[in-house]
Amino acid sequence: MDQVYMKGGHGEESYANNSLVQGDVISSTKLIREEAITSLYSSTLPSSLAIADMGCSSGPNTLSVVTEIIKVVEKLCKKLNHLSPEYKIYLNDLAGNDFNSVFKSLDNFKEKLSDEIKTEIGNCYFFGVPGSFYGRVFPDRSLHFVHSSYSLHWLSKVPEGLNNKGAIYIQSNSPSNVIKAYYEQFQRDFSFFIKCRAEEIVERGGMVLTFLGRKGDDARSKDCCFISELFATVLNDMVLEGIIDEDHLTTFNNPNYYPSPHEVKLEVLNEGSFDINHLEVSDIDVNASNDHSAYKFTQSMRAVFEPVLISHFGEPIIEEAFSRYQEKVTDIMAKEIIKTTYFTLSLTRKS
Amino acid sequence: MDQVYMKGGHGEESYANNSLVQGDVISSTKLIREEAITSLYSSTLPSSLAIADMGCSSGPNTLSVVTEIIKVVEKLCKKLNHLSPEYKIYLNDLAGNDFNSVFKSLDNFKEKLSDEIKTEIGNCYFFGVPGSFYGRVFPDRSLHFVHSSYSLHWLSKVPEGLNNKGAIYIQSNSPSNVIKAYYEQFQRDFSFFIKCRAEEIVERGGMVLTFLGRKGDDARSKDCCFISELFATVLNDMVLEGIIDEDHLTTFNNPNYYPSPHEVKLEVLNEGSFDINHLEVSDIDVNASNDHSAYKFTQSMRAVFEPVLISHFGEPIIEEAFSRYQEKVTDIMAKEIIKTTYFTLSLTRKS
Repeated sequence: MDQVYMKGGHGEESYANNSLVQGDVISSTKLIREEAITSLYSSTLPSSLAIADMGCSSGPNTLSVVTEIIKVVEKLCKKLNHLSPEYKIYLNDLAGNDFNSVFKSLDNFKEKLSDEIKTEIGNCYFFGVPGSFYGRVFPDRSLHFVHSSYSLHWLSKVPEGLNNKGAIYIQSNSPSNVIKAYYEQFQRDFSFFIKCRAEEIVERGGMVLTFLGRKGDDARSKDCCFISELFATVLNDMVLEGIIDEDHLTTFNNPNYYPSPHEVKLEVLNEGSFDINHLEVSDIDVNASNDHSAYKFTQSMRAVFEPVLISHFGEPIIEEAFSRYQEKVTDIMAKEIIKTTYFTLSLTRKS
Repeated sequence: MDQVYMKGGHGEESYANNSLVQGDVISSTKLIREEAITSLYSSTLPSSLAIADMGCSSGPNTLSVVTEIIKVVEKLCKKLNHLSPEYKIYLNDLAGNDFNSVFKSLDNFKEKLSDEIKTEIGNCYFFGVPGSFYGRVFPDRSLHFVHSSYSLHWLSKVPEGLNNKGAIYIQSNSPSNVIKAYYEQFQRDFSFFIKCRAEEIVERGGMVLTFLGRKGDDARSKDCCFISELFATVLNDMVLEGIIDEDHLTTFNNPNYYPSPHEVKLEVLNEGSFDINHLEVSDIDVNASNDHSAYKFTQSMRAVFEPVLISHFGEPIIEEAFSRYQEKVTDIMAKEIIKTTYFTLSLTRKS
């Protein structure tokens, strides 16, 4: 799934300008990260602290977590009367991510950071690391803290041999073989992610992951399927009107999975290298995050899904599809609050 | 000098497609690098080998040195009956460099590498590292081998307060204050480069640098000034014809310096952290490197200088300037061989 990266640049449709929901999730999970980094730093006191953001993308959220983590560590150093560590910041995403934009923003970022912290901080080194996190990306035992926000609901690929005509993900009427195929792909991907990170993270190192999921056991439930089911109706309409080829729709499926808390825990426990500190399940009010604007919500969907859609359907249908989607979202937003569920999973690497 | 990066992408005028001379220099300095990496690896036998390419740019040359180094090490491992090390490859350039292109080429690179080596090699991790090498870019003592090709003749900036009307660099009729200003900027930049690397490279670690220079003591000599003096005549013609504003030309100067062997040695010895193994002075026949094509030669100049020129003169004059330059180059190439001088400097970090 080489196409699973966010839309680059700074244009009106870029991910950089359309990641409000992601920003809200990052704010609301701050406490769990603070707790994790405090525990990690106090127990290991490294003179060089290696932090990785996996699935960093290219928007304003990319570096906000890094700022937050450095602030927490600097406060701890003062409290413990300890020298500020050297920071190694690794920003990982697929090779197709817009790393150029991220790198160009680093000078501003560093200036802002020293303004905010107001004291001399340790040296801070930045590295861009291209490659899928469903695989090894870092040397053995080279990271103290891993953070990943809004990325792990992307699978490494669409499940193979999926027979999902007319739908683009699991939806309310999906047969069980579709659900099974998606779930098995999730199991393979998520367990491999955990295994790779277990090799890369030092003993007592920490990892905080936020990603979309669902509350209960039913994989067909509205809190995880609603948004893609709505998009599927748009695509089906366009097939009926002859704008999209039926075969094209039949062969398209979202490379996502929204697991249950139980499914997540199971993979972590089976892998066995991490203690689970927290698995927090939260709702986000999508209407509020987008200022109750169907336009903003649609733009944010577009920034996320456009590269995948273009690579399958081609560029010409995109404008029309999202314009229709926005109409549907306007109707829904007037009637109800769209909610999505996300998890914050905090883990510690066992000794 | 934020504009000193090579022209990105893969277009006809990109650096990726116009770096033939640089490729020739890389081939001809291969033996010196082989010797350096052999000595380094045999004396330190690291289980994890950290290699940096500083000023990596974004063309096919970027990874060719990495391939070559890995091949040498793998051969040594076989000979010494030693396990293959883990490789950490750091690709450094200014934040404006086209890292996206470099990252997208990595998968192909890795495939080609395993095809060529034919045996299982150690894990290979890649990192993009944005930032000027005239400053610290890496943590203390974190690198075993540093390579930089065709980058160190770029200064960190044009010397301040330069009064160089009608010229764009030192040329045959330059007054001594112009030469002094350029030389002092070189001293500051080059000594700081050496000092930063001395902090970043492990004891007995190596560094091989190739960059443009001149053979003798005279900073006005043809082997270093000819190419920019020729370009200055183009710009002066365009001023006379009212195409370029005179003030614009007066305030433009190349941020380059082409030192003598003595000047290079002096800075290394003054800094004191490195032993000099070699300082090889070579000529390159620019006609031959460009298949005796004035077009190819002009394109290669354009790929290198276009970002600097656009940032000063604006886009509209570029096409015209290089078209005139190509005419002049055609005349010259018919009559004589254009040569440039380059150095290969091999250093070892003292214990």
